[in-house]
Amino acid sequence: MGSPERIRNVAKRVAKWARAGHQMVVVPSAMSGETNRLLGLAKELAPTKPDDAYGRELDALAATGEQASSALLAIALQAEGMPAVSYAGWQVTIKTNNAYTKARIESIDDERVRADLDAGKVVIITGFQGMDDGGNVTTLGRGGSDTSAVAIAAALKAHECLIYTDVDGVYTTDPRVVPEARRLKTVSFEEMLEMASMGSKVLQIRSVEFAGKYKVPLRVLSSFTDWNIDINEEAKSGTLISFEEDENMEQAIVSGIAFNRDEAKISVLGVPDTPGIAYQILGAVADANIEVDVIIQNISKDGKTDFSFTVHRNDYAKVMDLLNTKVLPALGAQEVVGDAKICKVSIVGIGMRSHVGIASKMFRVLSEEGINIQMISTSEIKTSVVIDEKYMELAVRALHKAFDLDQPIA
Amino acid sequence: MGSPERIRNVAKRVAKWARAGHQMVVVPSAMSGETNRLLGLAKELAPTKPDDAYGRELDALAATGEQASSALLAIALQAEGMPAVSYAGWQVTIKTNNAYTKARIESIDDERVRADLDAGKVVIITGFQGMDDGGNVTTLGRGGSDTSAVAIAAALKAHECLIYTDVDGVYTTDPRVVPEARRLKTVSFEEMLEMASMGSKVLQIRSVEFAGKYKVPLRVLSSFTDWNIDINEEAKSGTLISFEEDENMEQAIVSGIAFNRDEAKISVLGVPDTPGIAYQILGAVADANIEVDVIIQNISKDGKTDFSFTVHRNDYAKVMDLLNTKVLPALGAQEVVGDAKICKVSIVGIGMRSHVGIASKMFRVLSEEGINIQMISTSEIKTSVVIDEKYMELAVRALHKAFDLDQPIA
Repeated sequence: MGSPERIRNVAKRVAKWARAGHQMVVVPSAMSGETNRLLGLAKELAPTKPDDAYGRELDALAATGEQASSALLAIALQAEGMPAVSYAGWQVTIKTNNAYTKARIESIDDERVRADLDAGKVVIITGFQGMDDGGNVTTLGRGGSDTSAVAIAAALKAHECLIYTDVDGVYTTDPRVVPEARRLKTVSFEEMLEMASMGSKVLQIRSVEFAGKYKVPLRVLSSFTDWNIDINEEAKSGTLISFEEDENMEQAIVSGIAFNRDEAKISVLGVPDTPGIAYQILGAVADANIEVDVIIQNISKDGKTDFSFTVHRNDYAKVMDLLNTKVLPALGAQEVVGDAKICKVSIVGIGMRSHVGIASKMFRVLSEEGINIQMISTSEIKTSVVIDEKYMELAVRALHKAFDLDQPIA
Repeated sequence: MGSPERIRNVAKRVAKWARAGHQMVVVPSAMSGETNRLLGLAKELAPTKPDDAYGRELDALAATGEQASSALLAIALQAEGMPAVSYAGWQVTIKTNNAYTKARIESIDDERVRADLDAGKVVIITGFQGMDDGGNVTTLGRGGSDTSAVAIAAALKAHECLIYTDVDGVYTTDPRVVPEARRLKTVSFEEMLEMASMGSKVLQIRSVEFAGKYKVPLRVLSSFTDWNIDINEEAKSGTLISFEEDENMEQAIVSGIAFNRDEAKISVLGVPDTPGIAYQILGAVADANIEVDVIIQNISKDGKTDFSFTVHRNDYAKVMDLLNTKVLPALGAQEVVGDAKICKVSIVGIGMRSHVGIASKMFRVLSEEGINIQMISTSEIKTSVVIDEKYMELAVRALHKAFDLDQPIA
């Protein structure tokens, strides 16, 4: 919601749904740039200390952005002749724990909301925020509005939770890399989780996890379509993230190709193969508050093994230093080598569970393109490879075509 | 509080007071321009209906400005090493009635605030807002931050309520009109009330009334002085609005000259002098939600009387029309005449109560300047005249000098 014009369009869209007989609860995000503006002011005032020190006040500050956009949306709806009321998190009440700037929702009281819905009102609830037991304002962290929407949908047992974003759905892969990428009409919760964790920026992974936990059907659709498109058309647009493998599920074995070039790989070579080495290496990394993604340990040879993992590229130098100065001497390992110019490419698909040979097909396709695989990691519905980042686009396009994800030629 | 730099200076000033051993409660206003920005957005979304229709949501919207500045001030104080905590009105709780956009404070729960003060924290409370019985956010109307500060000072039985403004105190008159105007060290509550109602923009009249009701000593002082001026000097700066006529009270008979050119005068001539005419005339004006200031009815002659009053200049045309089309025919009065080019000049002083001849001195001074008096209205501590607006500066300067208010030549 960037401008009065956009807020007005949101209001018209919501009013359209409400007039078609749907009880509507809307969870708006802050106006674009607002949260950054507020937190930027805070940063100017307190440049030296970490955010944690100011958690309570940062949350009180950041929460105002969604409060303002919620009230503005209520006004816009009322101006459209649609009864509407806005509530801050503490008014609903949305109870959270006390972890400022990254609170978790604990409970939602739906009584007030249900009464308003039954009275024919559109209910607007500030996303991204709640209140802890002490009556303090808390926020859920970036992307928290999506999480709020899903949690509220779960509490109200909503028919569907529509997430309006700046994309029109979930694609088989990034259309900027593969122009033939196809929008998926449905995607399973598990697949969405793998895609989100691979950096598909469509939805925050927390909101998908929440939806999975409470089995809230989520539809990702575009906020840029005209507000007055036919409601039946809009109801079927975007991508439905479904929790049931029903007959509507697309039956492709592989649903999409995810990729990510934000990672770096690090290998500790010649590690004595004794119990506890994984902890010795990764414990030190975790203590430095650095997240690790892929972890691979191969079988040992001559009592020595190689241990590899990936971290975010921004943490690469820090981890290399940590391993060389602290871990390597203690471990008696041979050497630490790393490479920040890698990428991770994954094939994701719930259909993989019942189909053998999918991974080997992936390796064959990459081999035919002359792409060397550096690391392999698999899960039930995903196979990931780490390759040289210069091959990323080539690999994604080749896999997208090989797994029949390209749009049919019309 | 216009910028991070200004917020930081406020924080340093507050910290100085706190470190000197004072328990400090701070009520910040929104960052300058913020409330107008928010309400401007609302206006764009709902241009046609009156604000009342959107009261609840306008309040939820406008309240965010003070919430943001309060959190920012808490962060700035913490960055200065001073423990601080911010509360929104609903967190204190500041209970108000349900009159959105112009709510009245009903009660303040000081328990949480006292506990924090006793724990050595600076407590920051959002001004301008509260919560009604239904848990809705309410705002107190423009200037409401001053009113909040006074109400909180009353609830906490504070030693003094310091109101930092863009002027350095209350003057004998507007220094832009009379360069010799002198800052008053103390002014009585009643005088301040008269000056505020005459358009001296130093303090909102509601906050002065509130201070009067609860006998909260108010000090008006400048927010532009350096934060690190000596604390004893700062504690004596500005103007103290006092509720006791003690020996420190300046003993001038007239404390100041107030003036106002926002008004217009209207006279209904040849009104049959029968009971109820004042109500017939002013009832219609009040029904149109128009405020009346001076009201004068002179003695009757031949069973007819003239009835005059002043209204805000913006309402002049509307009132003239209302009287001519509705009231005049029903009343059987002769004529309605009016003049928008007038001004009101008042001498104000608690000393007038015990001094006769003050009003007549005022009339003599004006007569010596050749200024014709059109209307006269008096109260215990004020005498006001309505004159042609072109004489305003002349009248103010002459009265300021005649009543010995000019600064002594050093």
